[in-house]
Amino acid sequence: MEFTNKRGFASDNNSGVHPVMMKAIMDANHGHTIAYGDDPYTAQAISKFKENFGDDIDVFFVFIGSAANVLGLKAITETYNAVICTDTAHIHVDECGAPERFTGCKLLTVTAPDGKLTVDLVKKHMHGFGFQHHAQPKVISVSQTTELGTVYTINEIRALADYAHQNGMLLHMDGARLANAAVSLNLGFKEFTKDAGVDILSFGGTKNGMMYGEAIVFFDKKYSQNFMYTRKQGLQLASKMRYISAQFNAYLSDKQWVNTAKHSNRMAQILAEKVRSIPCVKITQRVEANGVFVIIPKEVISALQNEYFFYVWDEDKSEVRWMTSWDTTEEDIINFTNRLKELVES
Amino acid sequence: MEFTNKRGFASDNNSGVHPVMMKAIMDANHGHTIAYGDDPYTAQAISKFKENFGDDIDVFFVFIGSAANVLGLKAITETYNAVICTDTAHIHVDECGAPERFTGCKLLTVTAPDGKLTVDLVKKHMHGFGFQHHAQPKVISVSQTTELGTVYTINEIRALADYAHQNGMLLHMDGARLANAAVSLNLGFKEFTKDAGVDILSFGGTKNGMMYGEAIVFFDKKYSQNFMYTRKQGLQLASKMRYISAQFNAYLSDKQWVNTAKHSNRMAQILAEKVRSIPCVKITQRVEANGVFVIIPKEVISALQNEYFFYVWDEDKSEVRWMTSWDTTEEDIINFTNRLKELVES
Amino acid sequence: MEFTNKRGFASDNNSGVHPVMMKAIMDANHGHTIAYGDDPYTAQAISKFKENFGDDIDVFFVFIGSAANVLGLKAITETYNAVICTDTAHIHVDECGAPERFTGCKLLTVTAPDGKLTVDLVKKHMHGFGFQHHAQPKVISVSQTTELGTVYTINEIRALADYAHQNGMLLHMDGARLANAAVSLNLGFKEFTKDAGVDILSFGGTKNGMMYGEAIVFFDKKYSQNFMYTRKQGLQLASKMRYISAQFNAYLSDKQWVNTAKHSNRMAQILAEKVRSIPCVKITQRVEANGVFVIIPKEVISALQNEYFFYVWDEDKSEVRWMTSWDTTEEDIINFTNRLKELVES
Amino acid sequence: MEFTNKRGFASDNNSGVHPVMMKAIMDANHGHTIAYGDDPYTAQAISKFKENFGDDIDVFFVFIGSAANVLGLKAITETYNAVICTDTAHIHVDECGAPERFTGCKLLTVTAPDGKLTVDLVKKHMHGFGFQHHAQPKVISVSQTTELGTVYTINEIRALADYAHQNGMLLHMDGARLANAAVSLNLGFKEFTKDAGVDILSFGGTKNGMMYGEAIVFFDKKYSQNFMYTRKQGLQLASKMRYISAQFNAYLSDKQWVNTAKHSNRMAQILAEKVRSIPCVKITQRVEANGVFVIIPKEVISALQNEYFFYVWDEDKSEVRWMTSWDTTEEDIINFTNRLKELVES
Repeated sequence: MEFTNKRGFASDNNSGVHPVMMKAIMDANHGHTIAYGDDPYTAQAISKFKENFGDDIDVFFVFIGSAANVLGLKAITETYNAVICTDTAHIHVDECGAPERFTGCKLLTVTAPDGKLTVDLVKKHMHGFGFQHHAQPKVISVSQTTELGTVYTINEIRALADYAHQNGMLLHMDGARLANAAVSLNLGFKEFTKDAGVDILSFGGTKNGMMYGEAIVFFDKKYSQNFMYTRKQGLQLASKMRYISAQFNAYLSDKQWVNTAKHSNRMAQILAEKVRSIPCVKITQRVEANGVFVIIPKEVISALQNEYFFYVWDEDKSEVRWMTSWDTTEEDIINFTNRLKELVES
Repeated sequence: MEFTNKRGFASDNNSGVHPVMMKAIMDANHGHTIAYGDDPYTAQAISKFKENFGDDIDVFFVFIGSAANVLGLKAITETYNAVICTDTAHIHVDECGAPERFTGCKLLTVTAPDGKLTVDLVKKHMHGFGFQHHAQPKVISVSQTTELGTVYTINEIRALADYAHQNGMLLHMDGARLANAAVSLNLGFKEFTKDAGVDILSFGGTKNGMMYGEAIVFFDKKYSQNFMYTRKQGLQLASKMRYISAQFNAYLSDKQWVNTAKHSNRMAQILAEKVRSIPCVKITQRVEANGVFVIIPKEVISALQNEYFFYVWDEDKSEVRWMTSWDTTEEDIINFTNRLKELVES
Repeated sequence: MEFTNKRGFASDNNSGVHPVMMKAIMDANHGHTIAYGDDPYTAQAISKFKENFGDDIDVFFVFIGSAANVLGLKAITETYNAVICTDTAHIHVDECGAPERFTGCKLLTVTAPDGKLTVDLVKKHMHGFGFQHHAQPKVISVSQTTELGTVYTINEIRALADYAHQNGMLLHMDGARLANAAVSLNLGFKEFTKDAGVDILSFGGTKNGMMYGEAIVFFDKKYSQNFMYTRKQGLQLASKMRYISAQFNAYLSDKQWVNTAKHSNRMAQILAEKVRSIPCVKITQRVEANGVFVIIPKEVISALQNEYFFYVWDEDKSEVRWMTSWDTTEEDIINFTNRLKELVES
Repeated sequence: MEFTNKRGFASDNNSGVHPVMMKAIMDANHGHTIAYGDDPYTAQAISKFKENFGDDIDVFFVFIGSAANVLGLKAITETYNAVICTDTAHIHVDECGAPERFTGCKLLTVTAPDGKLTVDLVKKHMHGFGFQHHAQPKVISVSQTTELGTVYTINEIRALADYAHQNGMLLHMDGARLANAAVSLNLGFKEFTKDAGVDILSFGGTKNGMMYGEAIVFFDKKYSQNFMYTRKQGLQLASKMRYISAQFNAYLSDKQWVNTAKHSNRMAQILAEKVRSIPCVKITQRVEANGVFVIIPKEVISALQNEYFFYVWDEDKSEVRWMTSWDTTEEDIINFTNRLKELVES
C-alpha cells in the first residue's frame, strides 16, 4: 500500500532519509560482514569521526539520541551524582525519565528563557559538595542547538566548560542537531565542541537526514575504556551495524551534513521571514537554526492543525514550534504561511 | 569505498538485508510521517501482526532482540522476581547482564543439554515462594529456536506454559529466530505461541533478513497497558519508526518470512549432510532450524577461521557453531565443506 | 571511654533515646524470638498502629526515614512516573538521589516559600499525561511537618489529596516529624493523614526519641500486597526486629509520642520568643512545630558555631535552622540565647 | 506486655543482645552528638577496627548484613560485571535479588557441596572476558563461615585471592559470622582476611550478640573514596549512629567477640556430639563453627517443629539446619536433643 506523506513543520524527525544516505545503505547491502561493529563500514565511519574531531577520541554508535544522551551521561557519572540542565532540556522533558532510571542520577534544572545555560544560572545548584546527604553535581549538560532553536557561541560553551572543570565537573553536549548549530556558527564540529572544552558529545544524525543512528563522542578516553559493555547492557548495540556506519560515512563525506543542515536552516529563515509579516503572529525566539517558535491565536492553532500536524510548545502562551528539515521546500513554506495568513485574517 | 563482504557461516546477523525488505524501506522513503509510531506504516504493520496472532494482542517495535527480551521481561515482572532459563539462554549469556540491570530480577539457570527447558528442569528453582528473603520466581523463559538450533514442539511449550500458569507464573518466549522455528514445525506463528500458552513473545526480524527491528507481542493486554512508557524509558522508541514498520509489512506479506526461513533451514540441512560425511567431525545437536553445532579438531578450527569467520561455541569440547542465512547458497556450502574436508584430511 | 555530649539545637537526630523507649528495648531483651518480624513485639506494634489508623491498613518497619520515603514511593510508582514535591523536600535535597535511583522516577520540584505545596504550585507540572516521551506524574509528596517547621492544616492536605485523586495520582506524606505536626494541630494521627486523603505515609520515630526505626503505613492495601519483598530487596528488613517494634510499642502507648513532641514544640516556642527580643535577629518562618528558622549576621553564625553545632540553612540569606528536641531544657535555651545575645551585641 | 521467648536453634539472629553490648548502648545514651557518624563513638569504633585490621583501611557502618554485602559489591563493580559465588551463598539465596537490583551485576553460581568455592569451581565461569555481549566477571565472593557451617582455611582463601588478582578480579568476603570463623581458625581477623588477600569484607556483628549494625571494611581505599554517597543513597546511613558504634566499641574490646563466638562454636560441638549418638540422624557437614546440618526423618522434623522453631534446609533430603548462639546453654541442648531422641525412637 502507498501512503500520501504530506510534508509539514512538525519535526525534523518526520522527514525521511536523504537520498545520499539511502544510497549508502544500499551500497553496503551485499554479502556478509561481522556483526556488532567489527566490520569495515564501521571502521571507516570511525575514521571519518576522527577526521572531524582528531585522532584522540573514541566514538560509539547507538540507535537514538536519547540513548546517546543517557549512555553518555552514564559513562561519566556515578549513581550519586547530579546533572544540571535547563528545564526545557531534552534529557529532562523528552526522555521519560530514562536519564534518572539508567544513571541513577538526579537532574537539577534551571529556567533559561532562551534555552541556554549560563554560569550564573548553573550556580543555583552548585552547593552541597562533599555533603553525604546531597547528590553530588558532576555534569553540566547543554543542548546545541538548544530545544528553543538558539545556538551557543563558542565563548558561551567555553565559559560553561571552564566553570565545570574548575569545579571538578564535566560538560556534556546533546548535539541532536549539531550540524544545524555548526552551520549556524559557520564552524566545523571540533571548534565549538572539543576545542571549547566539551567532554562528551551526543552527535546526531537522524534529524539531519539519516534513517537512524547517533554517536557518542568521547573527548577523554578515560571515560570510554569500558563503554562497549555499557552500550551492550544499555541495549544499544546494533547487530547489523554496517547500516548505521554506512550512513555516517556518507553523512561525513562531501560536506553532506553541511548541505542538508544549511538547507534546513535557510528554510527556517524563510519561514520566519514570511511569518513576520503576518499580523497577530509573534516569533518568540531568535531563529538561529531550523526551529521557529511562534505565538499565534489559539483558534488558529487548531484550525491549522487540521491541515498540518505540529506541536504546541506552550499551551498557556499559545506558542507553537515549527521545524524545517532537509527536504522542506520554499513551496511548502509558501503554502503553509498562506494558509496561516488566511486563518489569521478570517 | 567498496568492501568485499565474503559470505560465511558465523551468524545470521552477518548477512545483509533481503531485497524485499530493502525495497519496502525505499518505498516508504517519501514525504513526512509523524514520528514515533503514529504513522500509517506502523498501523499497517500492527494489522499484519494481528492477522498472524489474532486481534486481541498488543505489539510494540524495538530495535534489537535483546531489547525485546529485556523490556518484555520488565513488563511482566517486579524487581524482586526471578526468571528461570537455561544456562545457554541468550538472556543469560549474551545480553551483558541487561536483564538483571533493567528488570532488577534474578536469573536462575538450569543446564539443558539440548537447549530446551522442561518442567523437570524448571522444578529445581521452584521453591521459596512467599519467603521474603527469596527472589520470587515469576517467569519461565524459553528460546524458540533454542540457542542450540533445536526447536520446541507445541506440546513441549504447552507443558511449560501450563506448569507456569499453575504456579502463578508466566511463559516468555525469545523468538529471535521464530520464523525458523515455525518453518521447522510447519506451523503458523500463533499455533505454537499464543495458542500453546505463551504469554509474551520477542518476535525477531533481523536474523531473517531485516535491517533492524524486532517486536514484543503481548498476548495479555494487562501487561502492555503502559508499555509505551517502558519502551521510551528503555531507549527503544524509534523516531523514524516507519522504516521498521515498512520492513515488517513486507516481512509479513506474501509469505516472505516463510520463504527466507525455509531457505535458511534447508541450507542448514544441506550443510549438515555434507559435514556428516567428513571424518573426525561430529554434529552435536539435532539440526532442526538454521544452526549446525559441530565438534572438529582444534587445529582445524583455527585453520578454517583464517578463511571464514565463525564462533567457537565450547572451547573445551572443541565445538563450533555454524549458522546459515537467507542468503546462503549451496555453492557457499560446497566451498566451505570442501575446505573443511581438506583441512581435516591434511 | 566517656564522652561529654553537649546538648544543642542542630537537629532532633542529635539527641539520644528517650528513657521510655530505652526501657522498652531492655525489656524485650531476653530469650529468642523469630527474626525478621515474625515475633510478638512486632505483632503488638502493628496492633498499636491499627489502633491509631484503623484496622484496614498495612504497616512495615524500616530503619530510617529516607528508606520509609524511598520504599514507600517505590510501592506506588512505576519507573516511568514522576513525583512532585517542593525544592526543599527531604526526598529532593537530603536523600542523595536515592528516590531516583531506587524508584527510577523523576522528581519534579516547585519552590514553596513556606515549605508547603499547594494545588496551584503543583499545577506547574501537571502536563504531558499520556505523552510517551514524558515521565508521567503519579505522586504528590508533602512533608508534615515541612522541612521549614511549618505544618499543613487538614484542609490543605485534603485539597492536595483531592486534586491528586481527581488526576489519577496519589498523595504521599513524609512524616518524619509527624508527632510534632499532630501535637501542633492538636489532632490524632489519623485525622490529618488517612482521613484527609493521604495514600501512603512515612511515619517517623527516630526524631522524636527512638533509637532507630520508622514505619511505612499503607492506607490502601493494594499497594502493600508484595511490599515485604520490596523491603527485603531494599535492604530494610531488620533481623532482630523486636527492638524496633518494642520501641514503637512504647512510643504508641501512654501518650508517649504526645508528651515528647509536645515538649519539643513548646521548647521551640520558648526559643522563638527569646530570639524575637534579640536585635538583628529575624525569624523567617512561622514556628509551628520544633524548628526555628532565623536570619542572623554572618559573623555571629560562625562565632556561635564555635560553641554550638548547628546547620546554616541558606548561606546567601545568612539563615540558620535550630531544632528543639524531646530532651531540650529551658536552661539550654537560656544559655544559648544569652550567648547569641552577647555575640550580637558585641 | 511480657512475652515468653523460648530459646531454640533456628538462627543466631533469633537471640537477643548480649548484656555487654546492651550496656554500651545505655552508656552512650546521654546528651547530644552529631548525627550521621560525626560523633566520638564512631571515631572510637573506627579506631578499634584499625587496631584489628591495620591503619590503612576504611570502614563504614550499615544496618544489616545484606546491606554490607550489596553496598560493598556495588563499591567494587560496574553494572556490567558479574560476581561468582556458590549457589548456597547468602547473596544469591537470601537477599531477594538485592545484589542484582542494586549493583546491576549478574550473579554466576557454582555448586559447592561444602559451601566453599575453589579455584576449580570458579573456573567454570572464567570466560567471555573482553567480549562485549558477556557480563564481565569481576568479583569472587566467599562467605566465612560458609552458609553450611564450614570454615575456609587461610590457604583456601589465599588461593582464591591470588586467582582473582591474577585475573584482574577482586575477592569479596561475606563475614556475617566472621567471629565464628576466627575462633574456629584460632586467628585474629586480619590474618585470614586482609593478609590472605581479601579486598573487601562484610564484617558482621548482629549474629554474634549485637542488636543491629554491620561494617564494610575496605582493604584498598581506592574503592572507598566516595563510598559515603553510596551508603547514603543505599539507605544505610544511620542518623543516631552512636548506638551502632558504641556496640562495635564493646564488641571489639576485652575479647568480647572472641568470648561470644567461642561459646557459640562450643555449643555447636556439644550439640553435634549429642546428635551423633541418636539413631536415624546424620550430620551432613563438618561442624566447624556454630551451625549443625542434620538429616532426620521427615515426620520427626514436623513433630520437633511443633515445639522448636527451626528451618528446613533441603526438603528433598530431609535436611535441617540448627544454629547455636552466644546465649545457648548446655541445658537447652540437652532438652532439645532429648526431645529429638524421644521423637526418633517413638
